[in-house]
Amino acid sequence: MSYLVTGASRGIGLELVKQLLALPKSQVTKVIALSRGAPPAALQELLDKHTSRSIHIAASVDNTESVKQAAQAVEAQLGDAGLDVLINNAGVLGEVSAEGARFIPPEEMLRVLDVNVVGPHRVTAAFLPLLEKGKQKKVINMFVKNSDSIPSIGCADVRRRSSTMGSIAMSEYFTFAPVPPYKISKTALHMLNKQYASEYEGKGFTFLAVSPGWLKTDLGGPHADLDVDVGVRDVIRIILEATPAQNGNAVSIKVSGNDRYDGKEIPW
Amino acid sequence: MSYLVTGASRGIGLELVKQLLALPKSQVTKVIALSRGAPPAALQELLDKHTSRSIHIAASVDNTESVKQAAQAVEAQLGDAGLDVLINNAGVLGEVSAEGARFIPPEEMLRVLDVNVVGPHRVTAAFLPLLEKGKQKKVINMFVKNSDSIPSIGCADVRRRSSTMGSIAMSEYFTFAPVPPYKISKTALHMLNKQYASEYEGKGFTFLAVSPGWLKTDLGGPHADLDVDVGVRDVIRIILEATPAQNGNAVSIKVSGNDRYDGKEIPW
Repeated sequence: MSYLVTGASRGIGLELVKQLLALPKSQVTKVIALSRGAPPAALQELLDKHTSRSIHIAASVDNTESVKQAAQAVEAQLGDAGLDVLINNAGVLGEVSAEGARFIPPEEMLRVLDVNVVGPHRVTAAFLPLLEKGKQKKVINMFVKNSDSIPSIGCADVRRRSSTMGSIAMSEYFTFAPVPPYKISKTALHMLNKQYASEYEGKGFTFLAVSPGWLKTDLGGPHADLDVDVGVRDVIRIILEATPAQNGNAVSIKVSGNDRYDGKEIPW
Repeated sequence: MSYLVTGASRGIGLELVKQLLALPKSQVTKVIALSRGAPPAALQELLDKHTSRSIHIAASVDNTESVKQAAQAVEAQLGDAGLDVLINNAGVLGEVSAEGARFIPPEEMLRVLDVNVVGPHRVTAAFLPLLEKGKQKKVINMFVKNSDSIPSIGCADVRRRSSTMGSIAMSEYFTFAPVPPYKISKTALHMLNKQYASEYEGKGFTFLAVSPGWLKTDLGGPHADLDVDVGVRDVIRIILEATPAQNGNAVSIKVSGNDRYDGKEIPW
């Protein structure tokens, strides 16, 4: 099966590429790592280690033309086999404003919506023809990937519930995480996931919003709940086990013995 | 009490201005009608009829500088009394795509998010200093104002449930209303409303997302559920009766004997 991961240069995206390439060739035939500019050293090392099974494509999810070109480049590589799994992982946290939403520059809110909502739309739209040819037809939208950065503000409630920060029903718990554009964008991303899921219902597709939890990445820092490999391992389990019956759902990772990460459906 | 209505040139915004000005002076001291460019004839007629209680301000909610200038102009008019009620009504439906989300140009999705989500943020942020001085401290975010246009596609389910089109829980009912950016933007607007509500909780503010229903406006067409004056009358009732206890809620209008419009909280 072939996988495309956006935002592959670091953090969760880089770890996804690493763990996917560690799976046997029978399970993962190709991993396409998409990121801005040239691959950083850690990604380049992975690519060099798996030259036959990995490709790097430079593209920005906030640039429609570059995403279209990326789709053409991937089509040239995969041909009629198509793409099996698309993981929309790229995203930004945006500006943190301890003074509140009203101090967020409107242009900054628009930028976060552009990258985190329109970005996955650009990528999904551009790669759908390839996904239609693929066997798996899975599209994963990473739902609260950057909740990592929240706890640097230092709020226990946010820590405890970071895996569901995009949820409206729980929004009152996140008063102290001053990233309104991020939260708004992730809510909108969930609706985007639902929109695509409705349209491709019954066509073998699985559109899934996945919350990877608060992980120890560059952004997450040392106080995060889980090592990045632990969170990403369960994200990969979710992806491998996903079926069209889950189309349109939002799920969080499950970590044995950790009630913050119970693997349940995320409430609205 | 003073009111500011965005998108006042037509449809629901124009009717809001009209009905507010029809209330006694003891209840409505000033109505500020905000719209792009010069007021159209119907709005100008209302302004001419109520010269002492109405003002028109030209501004675009997708232009930060024009919104800031509007706030300065309003401050010059209202002074220390501040603004009592802000109604974020301006919004666009965006492109309709019967072929599905993937055919929506990314730039079009971004434009809809800019007007419908960042727009209310721009206006709310710019007018908060004036709202803090006001007695009522109410901010109304019009939640599904343009569901009007949906039924031209001709779908009974959409018609029946148009008042809750922004709701994620009900998104599967709207498969046939091909306006993904609109739906995504209204979901995001609800989260924006929640964000502001959380931040201003306990400070006398009432941030309320209000669904006016599917109304017979220029956009809604003759097949809409309700005459615009019927829907807007209940929106005004909701605004007048709103209290800080409802802060952060989303409510729909109530129309006697019409179970589509039962006045209940909108589910997530």
